[in-house]
Amino acid sequence: MNLQQASTEELRQLEAELSNEHQAFCQQQIKLDLTRGKPSSDQLTLADNLDGILDGNYKAADGTDTRNYGGLEGLTEARQLGADILGMKISEVLAQGNSSLTLMFYAMLIAKEFGLGQKGAATAAETAWKNTNNDIKFICPVPGYDRHFSVCEQFGINMINVPMTDTGPDMDIVEDLIKSDSSIKGMWCVPKYSNPTGTVYSDDTVERIAKLGLIASNNFCVFWDNAYAAHDLNGYKAIANIMDLCRQHGTEDSVLQFASTSKITHAGSGVAFIGGSESNIKHFLDVLGILSIGPDKVNQLRHMRILPNHDALLNHMEKHAALLKPRFECVLNHLNAHFADNDLGEWESAEGGYFISFNTQPTLAKTVVKLAGEAGVKLTPAGATFPYGNDPHNNNIRIAPSMPSLSDIDQAMKIFVNCVKLASVKKALA
Amino acid sequence: MNLQQASTEELRQLEAELSNEHQAFCQQQIKLDLTRGKPSSDQLTLADNLDGILDGNYKAADGTDTRNYGGLEGLTEARQLGADILGMKISEVLAQGNSSLTLMFYAMLIAKEFGLGQKGAATAAETAWKNTNNDIKFICPVPGYDRHFSVCEQFGINMINVPMTDTGPDMDIVEDLIKSDSSIKGMWCVPKYSNPTGTVYSDDTVERIAKLGLIASNNFCVFWDNAYAAHDLNGYKAIANIMDLCRQHGTEDSVLQFASTSKITHAGSGVAFIGGSESNIKHFLDVLGILSIGPDKVNQLRHMRILPNHDALLNHMEKHAALLKPRFECVLNHLNAHFADNDLGEWESAEGGYFISFNTQPTLAKTVVKLAGEAGVKLTPAGATFPYGNDPHNNNIRIAPSMPSLSDIDQAMKIFVNCVKLASVKKALA
Repeated sequence: MNLQQASTEELRQLEAELSNEHQAFCQQQIKLDLTRGKPSSDQLTLADNLDGILDGNYKAADGTDTRNYGGLEGLTEARQLGADILGMKISEVLAQGNSSLTLMFYAMLIAKEFGLGQKGAATAAETAWKNTNNDIKFICPVPGYDRHFSVCEQFGINMINVPMTDTGPDMDIVEDLIKSDSSIKGMWCVPKYSNPTGTVYSDDTVERIAKLGLIASNNFCVFWDNAYAAHDLNGYKAIANIMDLCRQHGTEDSVLQFASTSKITHAGSGVAFIGGSESNIKHFLDVLGILSIGPDKVNQLRHMRILPNHDALLNHMEKHAALLKPRFECVLNHLNAHFADNDLGEWESAEGGYFISFNTQPTLAKTVVKLAGEAGVKLTPAGATFPYGNDPHNNNIRIAPSMPSLSDIDQAMKIFVNCVKLASVKKALA
Repeated sequence: MNLQQASTEELRQLEAELSNEHQAFCQQQIKLDLTRGKPSSDQLTLADNLDGILDGNYKAADGTDTRNYGGLEGLTEARQLGADILGMKISEVLAQGNSSLTLMFYAMLIAKEFGLGQKGAATAAETAWKNTNNDIKFICPVPGYDRHFSVCEQFGINMINVPMTDTGPDMDIVEDLIKSDSSIKGMWCVPKYSNPTGTVYSDDTVERIAKLGLIASNNFCVFWDNAYAAHDLNGYKAIANIMDLCRQHGTEDSVLQFASTSKITHAGSGVAFIGGSESNIKHFLDVLGILSIGPDKVNQLRHMRILPNHDALLNHMEKHAALLKPRFECVLNHLNAHFADNDLGEWESAEGGYFISFNTQPTLAKTVVKLAGEAGVKLTPAGATFPYGNDPHNNNIRIAPSMPSLSDIDQAMKIFVNCVKLASVKKALA
């Protein structure tokens, strides 16, 4: 399909065919949802032995009665698992409740209002963003994760788009921005299988991010959301260890890491981790201790029974990959079959994570999402992958194939492909 | 023991005897802890069937797969239980994670920074405390709960002490303060078995609190922490329903309620509840949805299996009472035996909750806590029951008898009684 070389009449003919097909889809009254990165029921079932696994033994390895109050840092064995996932020391990692998003919100709140106490500062308060700058800015590689952007927006932090490349955020732009503007206080990163592009940060990118602390203001902090640390479709591949690189460059206070077991065990009932320099973690705990008496240690103990160490976790993730891979392949097969030989769309072949990022021709994303909605296929709202919901080219659509059945994805992709073609033809005719 | 009528020689003799006894205690090198209101192991065991109770069925009553993301408000059946505990409508209650303290922190954050959207306001933001007053004040009935005070302190909210009476906070003082100072934005309340005095608010006090919204600023909000709603030692007794009274007086937006199952099932792994007007809850959810994708619904479902309704909860609480009552009686027996006929100490006979509040003669609390510590009995630091850790009379000590064994409490109280006497005699001699 080469729309540029087609005559108006050919385009009209094509539009009629695609419209008819679209109407046929609409009349089927199906309901399919490709909006969010939720695990499928089959994936969740992989961890169903969590309930009952304690067999009456609520004691942690060190004898802690997990049923009672306390233990703000999390169980030692859970912190060790988090440290292994994040590539850090156990003293740098806390194991907490069911949501890493909550820990990111806490970190943003503390960094802005109370201070994380970066190197050379006498008090934490003097490092609080609100005490050093009236205007606070964050760098957001785009497209990115809408919930990250919502946290910034809630705190009134201004977001600056930086394009994502095949090796991670465009670091030339990132470095220039940081050098020229001391009100930039941090950057969102999903370093492995970035949401939604699936980008894996190259070793060089990771090292350049670890060195940002050398050129940024003292209280600059990268929010390193390693949400897909072990979520490979084709076997585990490690990325460069950012904390080791920070140690080499003396920038340990400039990165906070996050991860969780939400897409490993049960999505709503996992264990979340935050990692940072011992100084950062100390100041984080100062506030955490005000709002919590301690995390759900019983649930942490359950997790340690089925994920006693990082190898066990990686074995478990292979079972997820077996369920996810055909779903991703189905999406990619449809995209390849219809768009490989034309310019109607671009995408990357994700090797892990939960998404495939699809770019329509400029200005068409909202139309495609709307058309798909008419035919019963719910897609993430166009623009959601950009700060303030504003995709400047209106061309990015995030496809989340994890939850529906393979046949539902197949059906949804038939509809999606048709919507992309229809929108493109209408544009060519306009 | 009447120290006022004793001669100096008699006092010296008494001091020598008490000192000898104290030294003997010190040499026993025991270690006992009466500091925090933690349930005993026996109490926790009452809920040990939580793990495994789902028997592979992770579906909520409405078919929700509790294992997956979502459901920000909490499971419907868990919200119903919370509504029954708090005496509210299900639409007014959210079921969340393992800590009501966390929900109180969130509520304080939202009320201060983002606004809870009280009656007549066009936007939530215009009701945010920081947007209406530079100086923000909270009324704190004293003695009270140290963690409440810490939340205020973290947010830089100034605390004003109001004395606790036998029927609740001194409402004459509370009303006068609120009428004269519009920067007072709220009040902490533990209406049933108040921490630490055990006070139960009278019907009249509850109604006067419900009417504070009529004389306070629009964004005034009582933080009603019903932590011991079902924690009676001698059978369940309901207090006046504050939300019903608020409805009568049109002040529904002026009270937020909190409760949890922490001292009902497993202390660190329970379900927490927040209740408020539908308008307050809507604005609370607006921010909650930024920091969370949803609470641990699996754990909520487990709780519904062992606490399917309020009656089941009350039956369960009778088992707690059977374990707690002898411990409270042991403390009270020691206090009665040694201080009923003199002026060395005052206390109230708690009918529920987790504490006995003891007042020494003025200026002696710190000394008694220090002496007890020397003899191996750890008590809550003197002053902790007051804002900023500052007990103006230095005479309040919180005794928490729930966790140690009966024989340990007996031993600890022997030491405590001796410390009170010794400190009092030393004072009489000074």
